[in-house]
Amino acid sequence: METIKIGLIGLGTVGAGVLEIISDPENQAKIENTIGRKLAVKTIVVHNPNKPRPVDTTGINVTTDVDEIVKDPEISIVVEVMGAIHPANEIIEELLQAGKNVVTANKDLIASNGPKLSALANANGCDLMYEASVAGGIPILRTITNSFTADQILEVKGIVNGTTNYILTQMREKQWSYDHALKRAQELGFAEADPTNDVAGIDAAYKMIILSLFAFGTQIKLSEFNVSGIENITDQDVKQAGQWGYVIKLMGVAKLVNEKLFVEVAPTLVAKSHPMAVVDNENNAVMVTGAAVGDTLFYGPGAGGLPTANSVLSDITSEAKNITLQTTGKSFNSYQHERQLADPADVKYSYYLAMTMPDVSGQMLAFTTLMTKVGASFERIEQTNREDKLADVAVITHAMTNQQLAELKQLVAESETLKLDAAYKVLPS
Amino acid sequence: METIKIGLIGLGTVGAGVLEIISDPENQAKIENTIGRKLAVKTIVVHNPNKPRPVDTTGINVTTDVDEIVKDPEISIVVEVMGAIHPANEIIEELLQAGKNVVTANKDLIASNGPKLSALANANGCDLMYEASVAGGIPILRTITNSFTADQILEVKGIVNGTTNYILTQMREKQWSYDHALKRAQELGFAEADPTNDVAGIDAAYKMIILSLFAFGTQIKLSEFNVSGIENITDQDVKQAGQWGYVIKLMGVAKLVNEKLFVEVAPTLVAKSHPMAVVDNENNAVMVTGAAVGDTLFYGPGAGGLPTANSVLSDITSEAKNITLQTTGKSFNSYQHERQLADPADVKYSYYLAMTMPDVSGQMLAFTTLMTKVGASFERIEQTNREDKLADVAVITHAMTNQQLAELKQLVAESETLKLDAAYKVLPS
Repeated sequence: METIKIGLIGLGTVGAGVLEIISDPENQAKIENTIGRKLAVKTIVVHNPNKPRPVDTTGINVTTDVDEIVKDPEISIVVEVMGAIHPANEIIEELLQAGKNVVTANKDLIASNGPKLSALANANGCDLMYEASVAGGIPILRTITNSFTADQILEVKGIVNGTTNYILTQMREKQWSYDHALKRAQELGFAEADPTNDVAGIDAAYKMIILSLFAFGTQIKLSEFNVSGIENITDQDVKQAGQWGYVIKLMGVAKLVNEKLFVEVAPTLVAKSHPMAVVDNENNAVMVTGAAVGDTLFYGPGAGGLPTANSVLSDITSEAKNITLQTTGKSFNSYQHERQLADPADVKYSYYLAMTMPDVSGQMLAFTTLMTKVGASFERIEQTNREDKLADVAVITHAMTNQQLAELKQLVAESETLKLDAAYKVLPS
Repeated sequence: METIKIGLIGLGTVGAGVLEIISDPENQAKIENTIGRKLAVKTIVVHNPNKPRPVDTTGINVTTDVDEIVKDPEISIVVEVMGAIHPANEIIEELLQAGKNVVTANKDLIASNGPKLSALANANGCDLMYEASVAGGIPILRTITNSFTADQILEVKGIVNGTTNYILTQMREKQWSYDHALKRAQELGFAEADPTNDVAGIDAAYKMIILSLFAFGTQIKLSEFNVSGIENITDQDVKQAGQWGYVIKLMGVAKLVNEKLFVEVAPTLVAKSHPMAVVDNENNAVMVTGAAVGDTLFYGPGAGGLPTANSVLSDITSEAKNITLQTTGKSFNSYQHERQLADPADVKYSYYLAMTMPDVSGQMLAFTTLMTKVGASFERIEQTNREDKLADVAVITHAMTNQQLAELKQLVAESETLKLDAAYKVLPS
């Protein structure tokens, strides 16, 4: 049986996971049984070849020189799991120009430069696949490409960042503050020392860019949509949401509004009966709503070496099939459709608002006057008086546009006594 | 642009859905954009061509003669959505022998005769695809085939019958009896006039046969595993489960136990915090657990014309790619692995037991003596005295084997006063 030789660039958690899965004899037997080819890692490029590794590299050429992969005609599939945009971008360009099929888990790179690299792959008759770049172990990109070809996707929404979902779950279950939950997550390795990329929603935003490309055929930029993180969510918000039957999730959404595309990453209240409400801790989920199929949801581990490595392997085995059938050079995602971004005046949600106001007569009147001024109205409201003569007022509004919300924020900011501490979307059920 | 011509056999709910999706200009544009081919239904075979249809067939040849598809060299893909094993089996054999690629939603046929028909397809260089045969709108078969090639699947479990899930959801939400919930489901069209196939678990069992083939490479027969339906679930069971934090679901499971395959369809208690607990009404979900990836879950509509038609369309567009790339004749599922069936003595679950016993001294002692005799023990127990001098006793046991449960059932049956009304598995969390 013919062996397909693989080059591996990077041997961190995911790289080691890829090697572990491929080296397992039971997995090898299944792969050979299914695709009729053997897979073998021939060469691994690392920074420091002398560093001890948690995985056996016996018989594999471990080097610091990427040319030992680029210039090796025996290697037909290269897995890039070094991370970061540079020099990964330049290395992948070089690999594609050399006719190598590339598999990557690099979401920052794909979100920023995916279409250009895909075009380069096509031009060189080879493939670029990146299933592992979104939602770790969930096979969501290939599913959108293969199973929604004939349907119009109306909305894709996802809990696509494991770190923030872990923090929010712990805040809810243990009544912890955000700071305490973040500290514990860092101690347990679920959050990085500098957690900004995760907690500010950037990581989730990269994944929504890739999901939007697959679902809507449209490439958007990070600067083109609103990205809010979880840093300002208080234990009081979590508790109030819970009392009203909601959990708070960092939710990415991409949906069509009047044929235009609305994309956002922001904290969102999700009703406890909604299938996304039970997606807890480091798990991820993506809900795809199609005009014909309705709501479908894909759930699984959002990160971790082996789950992410399994998604890399799904690319490798697909690629091996393409090589065998001589069908390389087709795009991973071939749906392209230019769309304008939606007008904020057309995008409507209910909102959870957390206000602080002096606990004196007339304040609620002042607030309701502002609400009325922008044409918004209350669905429910709860006031809790604090010890410092201030009152916490929590509100769920009826559906209002982004435009109305912006006007309301402006009016509250101009008020001398009212303070808007939080405004989070409520996911329609 | 080249047009791929399609034959359609059957124009019921799913057939009409297929025609509706293909005829939509927006969908056509997306299909052409993605696969570079047009799709058009050329001929439809129906029983009665004069029957009014909810979908426009203008320009399509509507006939009663299947030969107008079999013998038409222009038609390369044929969709069989007539249902039932005969004559669908014979028609599909004839189509495959004529070199037609076949897409079917016929789970009864595929569960009974899938491997033989797949071999016939391969022998004739054409394809047989059946994504829509399991879990309606959920793209589960293609996902298992494409995304778990390099992972060892340990377990597949699913809520794969919409009718029973609808009935159980209504029983729970409205505190209805089984009979009342079934009657309402029939009135609303969620259950058939003769509901046996659904409520006795047969339909779910067919789907588990197909899932087992994809996940484990092993073809099993309906007669080889235990299938229990929902007919005997009482409102008291539902209420008691709810008080203990569980919902009752009809769950199919296929999993490896000591390298052997255990398959079962049976009512199962699911903890409310489990992702499958929120799968309600006519929705379905399949959880796939891989050695590397861990738990993944796929959720969506389990039935319905358009959702099921969308799965048929995912087969059609995959098939269209195969035709374009000249790669037909590969199996939809190519993983094959013979396995023995698991020994009941090796399969362990906790069980919910519902007992009736006279409300007199010594009965609980008698029951605990039997439990001890088979080596089983209690995790929780609750007795409710009834007005008729009998007591309802509900129990959750610690994990025990199928073998122990069978022995317990035997001992209780031999007792003169104890009665076991129900024994349902509890899903491990």
